[in-house]
Amino acid sequence: MIIQKVSDAVSIKRSVESGTEEQRSVVKAIIDDVRTRGDEAVKEYTEKFDRTSLSSYLVSAEEVEEAYERVDAELVDIIREAAANIQSFHEKQLHNSWMTTEKNGTILGQKITPLDSVGVYVPGGLAAYPSSVLMNVLPAKVAGVERIVMVSPPGQNGKLPAAVLVAAKEAGVKEIYKVGGAQAIAALAYGTDTIKPVDKIVGPGNIYVALAKREVFGDVDIDMIAGPSEIAILADSTARANEVAADLLSQAEHDERACSVLVTTSETLAEEVASEVLRQLEELPRKEIASKSIQDFGAIYVANSMDEAINTINQLAPEHLEIIVENAMGYIGQIKHAGAIFIGRFSPEPVGDYFAGPNHVLPTNGTARFSSPLNVEDFQKKSSLIVYSEQALRENKDKIAAFARLEGLEAHARAVEERFKS
Amino acid sequence: MIIQKVSDAVSIKRSVESGTEEQRSVVKAIIDDVRTRGDEAVKEYTEKFDRTSLSSYLVSAEEVEEAYERVDAELVDIIREAAANIQSFHEKQLHNSWMTTEKNGTILGQKITPLDSVGVYVPGGLAAYPSSVLMNVLPAKVAGVERIVMVSPPGQNGKLPAAVLVAAKEAGVKEIYKVGGAQAIAALAYGTDTIKPVDKIVGPGNIYVALAKREVFGDVDIDMIAGPSEIAILADSTARANEVAADLLSQAEHDERACSVLVTTSETLAEEVASEVLRQLEELPRKEIASKSIQDFGAIYVANSMDEAINTINQLAPEHLEIIVENAMGYIGQIKHAGAIFIGRFSPEPVGDYFAGPNHVLPTNGTARFSSPLNVEDFQKKSSLIVYSEQALRENKDKIAAFARLEGLEAHARAVEERFKS
Repeated sequence: MIIQKVSDAVSIKRSVESGTEEQRSVVKAIIDDVRTRGDEAVKEYTEKFDRTSLSSYLVSAEEVEEAYERVDAELVDIIREAAANIQSFHEKQLHNSWMTTEKNGTILGQKITPLDSVGVYVPGGLAAYPSSVLMNVLPAKVAGVERIVMVSPPGQNGKLPAAVLVAAKEAGVKEIYKVGGAQAIAALAYGTDTIKPVDKIVGPGNIYVALAKREVFGDVDIDMIAGPSEIAILADSTARANEVAADLLSQAEHDERACSVLVTTSETLAEEVASEVLRQLEELPRKEIASKSIQDFGAIYVANSMDEAINTINQLAPEHLEIIVENAMGYIGQIKHAGAIFIGRFSPEPVGDYFAGPNHVLPTNGTARFSSPLNVEDFQKKSSLIVYSEQALRENKDKIAAFARLEGLEAHARAVEERFKS
Repeated sequence: MIIQKVSDAVSIKRSVESGTEEQRSVVKAIIDDVRTRGDEAVKEYTEKFDRTSLSSYLVSAEEVEEAYERVDAELVDIIREAAANIQSFHEKQLHNSWMTTEKNGTILGQKITPLDSVGVYVPGGLAAYPSSVLMNVLPAKVAGVERIVMVSPPGQNGKLPAAVLVAAKEAGVKEIYKVGGAQAIAALAYGTDTIKPVDKIVGPGNIYVALAKREVFGDVDIDMIAGPSEIAILADSTARANEVAADLLSQAEHDERACSVLVTTSETLAEEVASEVLRQLEELPRKEIASKSIQDFGAIYVANSMDEAINTINQLAPEHLEIIVENAMGYIGQIKHAGAIFIGRFSPEPVGDYFAGPNHVLPTNGTARFSSPLNVEDFQKKSSLIVYSEQALRENKDKIAAFARLEGLEAHARAVEERFKS
């Protein structure tokens, strides 16, 4: 890793994938086809892309039961404890509906209502991602969403990974379909005979899933389109190079396009981390991915002061931020933009990926400037409540009518005045 | 207006405008051009589309002062009172950052931070829309956004409407540019020498503005793309036909594609409203627009019961909902989807457009199923906070490492274990 001055940090490379023209048109064709032919199209695309032929997409109670037999009891307990932590943290995000009352009879308020139904996409591929199930399902459950549907592409054996099914059951999902790709997103957005449509679709997926979500957005809501994972570590001379290096690599192993950055006030640490990264890299099973990521998107920046370092962090607006400096808590107030902030050397980022409770679905690619971690409010919506009494309207009718006429909207003024005509 | 059975209501026509292929490519070309040539391009497009040549886009303090001389003092007072009501309501939406602590040293929390900068688009055209200024600016101000930039297309005289400037000043806007259309959105998203970029763009506009917002989305955040305005009125035999008709028409005058629907349990009311609409329509200055809207998108539905009527309302998920029935408050719990709910005959919808306090930027076209009124939280974002102590990490390290390995992410497990190596 090349060590640079912090002044170069503003130009940090990050990677956004918006898909090729061909990918976009493939996705659009699949969506149109599922809208037209429904289950029949879903079946064909599953056979084509997932190379499995299923008589039913719905995961049966037996399949879920059987999954428990295929997962270590100890791992089931860990999934349960993680689920409890995640549920507990998200319950603290709940807000009440509220209202204010005035003596003239006016009531104003905000009513909070859960979404009716949500679809959660869980990616397939070689590994199983039970943490993704927990992180996407539990906020919806805590929000009060009645119908939570999970979809995930089946393996060639026609099954879903056991750990995914266990996590789904532990999170309270009762409706799971073995469907993936753009065809799953289309089925969730527009419905088929088998899969009723939902109001919102969340969860990560490959480029086809991401493009499909973008395509159906507006007809249903979606969560953010996630880019490659990122970490920025803010460290001073009190940080240990082996720990910092390990944390940088834990992001790098995710994806060749993952971005791992150290910003430090210590030149010594910078040098030590650079060589530690190379040393630890050699021993990683996902060495190839991590090397490419570090080479293309890794960086170490040396700052002259903590102010300069923090300024750089705010410009990056990283998905994950670790602060490993003396008196770390004292700097939180200066951090403006970060998806999740991990404080101190005993809070490595994987603590948040799996276990602590806050959501691991976080804004990437600098969107922490304006976006938040996935949370309970993403599965609820507000309705304003307005109650004017006769007295309240009488007191204000002339002002409201005058404002309406200022904007050239006569019928608005008359609607108010109609109440006091006779 | 044709009176129909409520069972037909599910098929209510609504209009979504996604632009023609040509409009989309025009918008894309303007954005690319502003990104490349900056102010020069902005100047050319302003001359072309707004037919005015300006030496400076920035509205001067003198221009704002002069605006106050051109607006009735009484109207200035009304704008001030409306602004105070809107500010007061939105202040009640504020939430605190919070944290939880555990005995083992764990701290988990959620930090709330305002966006750095927001751009507010205010549409031009024949009328002035000071209410749009208040409704889009004040939530951002209450949220704590430091830089709020307003843009609006100048008239051929090179000026902005006086009422818009007064509303901007009252709402606390200090940076106003006379730029409109897709060129304004591009300048806000990517910046020029004159206009520094912002993190989020809100506010309504014509189809070119809407398409430009959709195009820059992702690089910056945007609010929802609003469709034509809608009202659904739920009324029983206690409602007065003249008032219900006036309220339907107050939506209809907005736009030929506005949608006004009555759902009632009273056949008598249905018939009376149908003829009242025709009578009042004759006397409206915007008769042509309102007639077309009522003809194409107006409807009266008769339901057999309140349950059936409420079910229809929930299927519509209207932007505005008026409930004018006996014991109206008793039905709020059954309303699942509506942008704003107006209760009783003294709460006509224009009360909310201008004055009461809740936002008039509301989800249209059925998106109240998953979207909320514009609110303070749209101008803030959250960061998760995770602090594990040595004890906390020691207690949980094996579980976290096991979960990471279950997902095939060895470097994640090692990052945790690295802390306890020696």
